Amino acid sequence: MAKTDWKAKAKALKKKLKKLGALVEEKPVAPVAAAAKPAKLVSKLAPKGGFPALPVIAGVEFSAVEAGVRYANRTDVMLVKLAPGTAIAGAFTRSSTRAACVLDCQCKLAAKVPAGAGAAIVVNSGNSNAFTGQGGVDAVNAVTGAVAEALGLPAARVFSSSTGVIGEPLPYERITAKIPDLVAGLRDDAISMAALAMMTTDTFPKGAMATVQGDGGEIRIAGIAKGSGMIAPDMATMLVYIFTDAKIAPAMLQKMLSRHVDTTFNAITVDSDTSTSDALILAATGQSAAGPVKGPVAKAFEAALHGVMLDLAQQVIRDGEGATKFVEVRVTGAASASDARKVALSIANSPLVKTALAGQDPNWGRIVAAVGKSGAEADRDRLTIRFGEILVAENGFRNPDYSEDDAAAYMRQDELLIGVDLGLGQASRSVWTCDLTHRYIDINADYRS
Amino acid sequence: MAKTDWKAKAKALKKKLKKLGALVEEKPVAPVAAAAKPAKLVSKLAPKGGFPALPVIAGVEFSAVEAGVRYANRTDVMLVKLAPGTAIAGAFTRSSTRAACVLDCQCKLAAKVPAGAGAAIVVNSGNSNAFTGQGGVDAVNAVTGAVAEALGLPAARVFSSSTGVIGEPLPYERITAKIPDLVAGLRDDAISMAALAMMTTDTFPKGAMATVQGDGGEIRIAGIAKGSGMIAPDMATMLVYIFTDAKIAPAMLQKMLSRHVDTTFNAITVDSDTSTSDALILAATGQSAAGPVKGPVAKAFEAALHGVMLDLAQQVIRDGEGATKFVEVRVTGAASASDARKVALSIANSPLVKTALAGQDPNWGRIVAAVGKSGAEADRDRLTIRFGEILVAENGFRNPDYSEDDAAAYMRQDELLIGVDLGLGQASRSVWTCDLTHRYIDINADYRS
Repeated sequence: MAKTDWKAKAKALKKKLKKLGALVEEKPVAPVAAAAKPAKLVSKLAPKGGFPALPVIAGVEFSAVEAGVRYANRTDVMLVKLAPGTAIAGAFTRSSTRAACVLDCQCKLAAKVPAGAGAAIVVNSGNSNAFTGQGGVDAVNAVTGAVAEALGLPAARVFSSSTGVIGEPLPYERITAKIPDLVAGLRDDAISMAALAMMTTDTFPKGAMATVQGDGGEIRIAGIAKGSGMIAPDMATMLVYIFTDAKIAPAMLQKMLSRHVDTTFNAITVDSDTSTSDALILAATGQSAAGPVKGPVAKAFEAALHGVMLDLAQQVIRDGEGATKFVEVRVTGAASASDARKVALSIANSPLVKTALAGQDPNWGRIVAAVGKSGAEADRDRLTIRFGEILVAENGFRNPDYSEDDAAAYMRQDELLIGVDLGLGQASRSVWTCDLTHRYIDINADYRS
Repeated sequence: MAKTDWKAKAKALKKKLKKLGALVEEKPVAPVAAAAKPAKLVSKLAPKGGFPALPVIAGVEFSAVEAGVRYANRTDVMLVKLAPGTAIAGAFTRSSTRAACVLDCQCKLAAKVPAGAGAAIVVNSGNSNAFTGQGGVDAVNAVTGAVAEALGLPAARVFSSSTGVIGEPLPYERITAKIPDLVAGLRDDAISMAALAMMTTDTFPKGAMATVQGDGGEIRIAGIAKGSGMIAPDMATMLVYIFTDAKIAPAMLQKMLSRHVDTTFNAITVDSDTSTSDALILAATGQSAAGPVKGPVAKAFEAALHGVMLDLAQQVIRDGEGATKFVEVRVTGAASASDARKVALSIANSPLVKTALAGQDPNWGRIVAAVGKSGAEADRDRLTIRFGEILVAENGFRNPDYSEDDAAAYMRQDELLIGVDLGLGQASRSVWTCDLTHRYIDINADYRS
């Protein structure tokens, strides 16, 4: 073997060192940015087995194209065509600065245009068309109008979403130019293509499914979602589309959807930041062989729908920007449901709790502080805190048998449960969150460049 | 010169590289912890010139000792002795899980014990004595009782604060054992020693002063503060002690203090996390040669007091954990004062805004999103956003003359102003914050070990 060239080795190491050192020492952005763009690795919290095999939903077709809205060498626009008779329900962000496409969807759903003609959903990534003034409204009209024309639908039945950078005019001609290709590419088995096309900082596409035994046939549900950062939904989450072949009236569909938004998409937070673009659309084509959804089937269908919604919501957390821990915060014993939610979100959004999780440090004092600042009714001396099965503290004092070593070992797991009992009442609430790591800062200190 | 020993050099570099690499690559906690403890560098945002020369306040004496509460080789307990006749006012955290010493201070202030006997303040760092049950109460009684005995004061006039880790029993005997030393060391010119002894993750001690021309003499104000993380005060901030020789009644002193808490200590946030231990005490010895504070002197005194409070509050932000930017968020045109505050805090607490600041990225879309999620009345199409003097957007649309290059150059400064006009009313509010950097995570992923 040749004698090691120590001089060259030292030089290479020195160079690497300089690069890393700059990152650690918080030098101005340029070196941080350079280091912040490693190959996009799939989150280690991603569901095992990758994107699930989702069933074909009769009456739903998908396609995706590369339109170059912002990204190169990847699909960035997807189209969903929904058969005549499809019932549609939706839930959207309550942000007061919501995007033009969100307002357009809300307006179209409120108009209750008869389902006879069918419907479509068109989604682009790379640009959220938010805070783009009248130009943003024009862009929505141009895109949905072009889709309506190409598919022979009323524009009032074409829903659109945009996700990506805020405040940049949407180059919508790049989308309208691709509509013939989108229409030509429609296939009933291409839902995964649609899921991929709407990703931004996501590291994996998100899908979930369920089947329910209906009267005289099977009912299928398949959903897709995108979301990774700016996740603290307030009514819905980033972008979620759920399809079913159930025969169900729009009003019943909307009721079911609204009932479960609070315990699924509104119960997750990556960073406490609420998007301007959150949209959730649920479409039921009615093409299942099963009869109309009612009675016990309605119950089973609603439970299955809840399961799909929760699965997708949790996948968003599993892909939280920089996440290395998937964490459930379960609050019990609250005086009211609103208090349970306040405490759970206060803990889940606390930067100090989230950095302790990143450090695998069972720093439960920060949980006490987060309960204290939540604004909910709380009595320090009735608080119980658990990490998984480990009783950390009760009655305002550390459990005498608490072992920091046991807790530290527990914190090294990827999936964690923080249990807080307020000891005041019967209300409870779970929310799901992730930790706050260096990667989150890498991703967000230089998202646009 | 001897030939360079490249082999040894490479080995040393490799070792350093490994250490830095672990920090960057989000390895499990142990290596992060090791790398997270560099020499404590003073924040680059610290006031130029170091700790200010604070005037002696007649009737106030200070001392500090090494009691080894948690830290070694540094002072960690400080004592302030206040002359007979001193009026005392205070403001404290509204956290529902506040520490025993905070409750004790509130109780003692509410009791309005006559000022005749004098008073004292005793503060330790390293342990916050929060969430420590009856043991915590006993610790407060032991420490304040021992100080009272040593100084010949009623215990009801001895106020205490504790700052540091939450949930660990306070080893108060280490403090009571040092009280003779503390009393023996009292000096009227040792205020900086007191400021140093209460530091935790602070990188510099904080002090501020003012003088006012009173009737027949000068009135002096000198204050000290500690605070760096868990900063989103809700009534006061971390620990702040302000002393004056003004002749002023306790009720007037309290009124002035309360009037200015909202625009100073309640207007800062490092990480949106509210402490269990926030305490602000203002003591007026009445030993100035000037006559009682009233009329125009009262106005001047109040203005000077506000200045000292704001200065100390801003110094806490300048020492925000990991901070590289000192940022004012100035909201104008709000429909109400409460809305202005909501919007300002929503922007100042947004992890996405704060990481963009760390990345020196003029990502104003995230400001739009933060306005939208604030819950305040806002009309997207009336929003105006500025970085310093740079008009970024107005009327819900990007300014056509906006130059991203100009904005990026602006963001490279250490001190930034984010201006948001809601275009709805006359209310305004400024809050001060810092960016969210890798150092914040380094510090907080392993604060306790």
